[in-house]
Amino acid sequence: MGGPMASNLALTAGRRVVVWNRSPDKAEALAAAVAAAAKAAGSGGGGGGGDAPAAGEIVIAGSPAEVVAACDITYAMLSTPAAADAVYHAAAGGALAAVTPGKALVDCSTFDVATSTATAAAVTARGGRFLEAPVSGSKVPAETGTLVFLAAGDRSLYEEVGGDLDAMGKRAFYLGAVGAGTRMKLVVNTTMITVLSALAEAIALTEATDGADAVAALHEVLAQGAMANPMYALKGPKMAAGAKAYAPNFPLEHAQKDLRFTLALAEEATVPMPVAAATNALFVAAKARGLGRDDFCAVVEALRP
Amino acid sequence: MGGPMASNLALTAGRRVVVWNRSPDKAEALAAAVAAAAKAAGSGGGGGGGDAPAAGEIVIAGSPAEVVAACDITYAMLSTPAAADAVYHAAAGGALAAVTPGKALVDCSTFDVATSTATAAAVTARGGRFLEAPVSGSKVPAETGTLVFLAAGDRSLYEEVGGDLDAMGKRAFYLGAVGAGTRMKLVVNTTMITVLSALAEAIALTEATDGADAVAALHEVLAQGAMANPMYALKGPKMAAGAKAYAPNFPLEHAQKDLRFTLALAEEATVPMPVAAATNALFVAAKARGLGRDDFCAVVEALRP
Amino acid sequence: MGGPMASNLALTAGRRVVVWNRSPDKAEALAAAVAAAAKAAGSGGGGGGGDAPAAGEIVIAGSPAEVVAACDITYAMLSTPAAADAVYHAAAGGALAAVTPGKALVDCSTFDVATSTATAAAVTARGGRFLEAPVSGSKVPAETGTLVFLAAGDRSLYEEVGGDLDAMGKRAFYLGAVGAGTRMKLVVNTTMITVLSALAEAIALTEATDGADAVAALHEVLAQGAMANPMYALKGPKMAAGAKAYAPNFPLEHAQKDLRFTLALAEEATVPMPVAAATNALFVAAKARGLGRDDFCAVVEALRP
Amino acid sequence: MGGPMASNLALTAGRRVVVWNRSPDKAEALAAAVAAAAKAAGSGGGGGGGDAPAAGEIVIAGSPAEVVAACDITYAMLSTPAAADAVYHAAAGGALAAVTPGKALVDCSTFDVATSTATAAAVTARGGRFLEAPVSGSKVPAETGTLVFLAAGDRSLYEEVGGDLDAMGKRAFYLGAVGAGTRMKLVVNTTMITVLSALAEAIALTEATDGADAVAALHEVLAQGAMANPMYALKGPKMAAGAKAYAPNFPLEHAQKDLRFTLALAEEATVPMPVAAATNALFVAAKARGLGRDDFCAVVEALRP
Repeated sequence: MGGPMASNLALTAGRRVVVWNRSPDKAEALAAAVAAAAKAAGSGGGGGGGDAPAAGEIVIAGSPAEVVAACDITYAMLSTPAAADAVYHAAAGGALAAVTPGKALVDCSTFDVATSTATAAAVTARGGRFLEAPVSGSKVPAETGTLVFLAAGDRSLYEEVGGDLDAMGKRAFYLGAVGAGTRMKLVVNTTMITVLSALAEAIALTEATDGADAVAALHEVLAQGAMANPMYALKGPKMAAGAKAYAPNFPLEHAQKDLRFTLALAEEATVPMPVAAATNALFVAAKARGLGRDDFCAVVEALRP
Repeated sequence: MGGPMASNLALTAGRRVVVWNRSPDKAEALAAAVAAAAKAAGSGGGGGGGDAPAAGEIVIAGSPAEVVAACDITYAMLSTPAAADAVYHAAAGGALAAVTPGKALVDCSTFDVATSTATAAAVTARGGRFLEAPVSGSKVPAETGTLVFLAAGDRSLYEEVGGDLDAMGKRAFYLGAVGAGTRMKLVVNTTMITVLSALAEAIALTEATDGADAVAALHEVLAQGAMANPMYALKGPKMAAGAKAYAPNFPLEHAQKDLRFTLALAEEATVPMPVAAATNALFVAAKARGLGRDDFCAVVEALRP
Repeated sequence: MGGPMASNLALTAGRRVVVWNRSPDKAEALAAAVAAAAKAAGSGGGGGGGDAPAAGEIVIAGSPAEVVAACDITYAMLSTPAAADAVYHAAAGGALAAVTPGKALVDCSTFDVATSTATAAAVTARGGRFLEAPVSGSKVPAETGTLVFLAAGDRSLYEEVGGDLDAMGKRAFYLGAVGAGTRMKLVVNTTMITVLSALAEAIALTEATDGADAVAALHEVLAQGAMANPMYALKGPKMAAGAKAYAPNFPLEHAQKDLRFTLALAEEATVPMPVAAATNALFVAAKARGLGRDDFCAVVEALRP
Repeated sequence: MGGPMASNLALTAGRRVVVWNRSPDKAEALAAAVAAAAKAAGSGGGGGGGDAPAAGEIVIAGSPAEVVAACDITYAMLSTPAAADAVYHAAAGGALAAVTPGKALVDCSTFDVATSTATAAAVTARGGRFLEAPVSGSKVPAETGTLVFLAAGDRSLYEEVGGDLDAMGKRAFYLGAVGAGTRMKLVVNTTMITVLSALAEAIALTEATDGADAVAALHEVLAQGAMANPMYALKGPKMAAGAKAYAPNFPLEHAQKDLRFTLALAEEATVPMPVAAATNALFVAAKARGLGRDDFCAVVEALRP
């Protein structure tokens, strides 16, 4: 995710972006690709000093701390709590140690509320500003600059980074104090996962009672109805086709983790979510069948004989 | 539902439609409205013999049996099993008694598979042909001629009535033997109800943790996502607004009935549907709170404190 | 079940019992066994004219109708709706045709409320009296005369058969109008099935986290606790031992059927039963894994990897 | 809980027990009661040098650290994570700071696995030995010395404290490494809570369909059956009687917390627990109705209209 986001910051927002990645090769490939694209855009832009922003560039840093030291605003996009721990807290080169008054951190990762709150506290304790900004959308929207940012935390920072978010996404929401962005992300993902599970059950029942032709008709009927949605159009045929089609855009075990976090939120808030709870139980059963690393639409396999 | 369907048969397909309704006033109002519309269309059509079909008309019959006697093809649109029983089996004027070889019945109502199968058996036992054709879509699609027909039964009859279904709907599917249409309708409705319940839980959690502004943002975020769908756009704000907004397009107790029928199908087919089962339990709880006659989106109330 | 019940009627209550069974061999074996036992009891009883009731006998009839014709009170114990249909409604020799004013029918089978109500109506329409009396307890309690009768219907008949029920069971309850006995049976079975499912989940979790020794400890800990019960003592070790131990005392698919009937009752009464609904979904999943004909404690297999 | 346990240590095991409690009044009352009981037992014991152990005594310490300093073995019985944090980690007088090589800590509280593991690590890091020993059973078994200990951790320590556990309980199990005791406790409590929920649903359905007399019969029928258990006999009539009877032996919100911990364990172990998940959702709904501080059997109220 981080690569295309940095690319859009450089090429669309015209930013000079200092990057660090655990795999230096990836960072170098990104820098080269951006340089080539900027050059092509520059020559394509013609001589006459058009109104296009000057194309930016990618500069490679040696550690997270170097990024923070070099920049007023640092964006983070991290995949796991372990990665976050390494990037923020590493004894040598950890990002947090470099935070000083005036520095700002925008974390686009998705973890749970406790993790986000702890990072915010560490940044502000050192005089910095913090914005959580988890994104709705995965790889393709990152590339096409159509992510949706669910931001929360320092409002002035949110307003300052507006142009950057525009370059990386199609919409941004400011949702309040730190935690609100993570909660929105979890709620939206939980909705998506339950919506998909409804389709999984519909497919499993239809193929058992009326066979594959009826499942093909089901896709078409749903496409005509009030709950027609892009995900059904994309995932429905994959689910009907079965086991070979589950390349993981969103791994089933990550979906189950999001369900668990959401249910924990709901229990703290004393809100019953019986449908999400049943969905979570189904996803645990799917994991028990060895489907954890398939795409989350593989949940349909847990309903098949 | 039956009124606008008959109107479209007359005005769009140019059919002479013989109608019967329990309330003669409604039938007369329909006949008058169609006559006025046909006249307006005729004068508007100008003198020159355009290619528009001759506008049809509505003729009122005294009983279901009279409709069957007067027409080769009879359409039925009935709301409850009790209504169906009266229309089909009434000692005086029941529709079935008038069925003779050559007559055809197209039943657009939604009941369970057993009811549909029994009607089919009664019709064919008297030499008639039967098509079940429950519809996806409710009042507005009936008026605008954009219903979706889920047809099953006599294939030749399905092909003969193609023009009629085109006049009343935007799509028709032929799904196989009698029962397949009812099953598809139940599966599609169950999917819709579970999809709506996912939104209800999302709204209930978000308003508990982050308040009304966050719920407004939730609607917008969902509208940007892969599971954006017309129903969420329509029902979401009503659910957020709460109790005064639940005018029943689709009564909650009917939704619960459809869930029960679907779960019975799933149990017969030995297909686990844990998410639908939890949704059904939630709908029963909502009925227990007195929400049975509200719109099915009132299910959100069962999740509120 | 019927054999030991008839035996107890003869030997404990001293009744002359006229029996009919689909398999005449079984009836004859029963008659011979009872005759032998009566003779043994008689000689054992000695000369002195004790207060023991005269031991009864078994007489074989050629059809259900002959049983009804020969007796004032007829007991029925039937396994399936199809068996009930044959016994009650057979054109030749069906029991109902022989009912006349003064005859009484006590049906100890378990079906749903609709079936029981229909039988009651047929019996009373012919001037007879009807008592439903489904039993709690299966084969061993039938043999040892320790069944529990859940009776409903004709109260005078209930009182008249008190001695018979005492001979076959350890307790009898009179619960009201026909249907109340069936409902009590379904509720009690549903409770039992959910209680067993709780143990299945406990075993599955414990063996996954702590292994077989911990499961053995779990049985002992549960035996010390407030929910210690005979079923846990009996079924727990079988569930822990796994697949070879599931000889069906109560087949899993019958348990699932009872859950379904109970959930239908609950939905009619608008009572949410989310735990029973989840249990039912689990049992459907267990059936989908091919466990329908194993004992209901095989449900634990559906929780194992 | 701690009071009667200390009392049994003194009076049954003949121990000199050094106690600390947040409320000094309670500690003093305990010391006085034990002194009185010891005196009565001593005089009652007569002159002749019986085989009864010399009755012990209660000595009051000024802080948790003083207890640890004064004793080789310290027992802890704490109600909440916050209490545990204060007792173990308080800057002044916290128990952990007093742990030195040779000291032993037996924690009888119930928390989650992470808390127990962290305490164990802190104790062993200071050279001490640790045993987790959560108990099955609440106030009455604590008083009567019939608790069940679910011990895990240092095996030599488990063996050394055998006499103490015998004085406070009727059974003790050694289950392995730290965490195994907590897991057993959570599994057993989850089983108990689901078993109770099955009864709640049975009562709610029966009272809706057949009224209070049928519920009274339900209790009796269950008492005859294979799942008869002491908890049903105790809680059933309270649940039937309704709202005034829910004095909290085991608060509903604590039960919900245990369900949550168990579900988290199950998800980590990839074991589906759909019935426990539905039970948890029901308990969250009960909390949302304001029943969190009632006894856990008040869950039946969440099923009533």
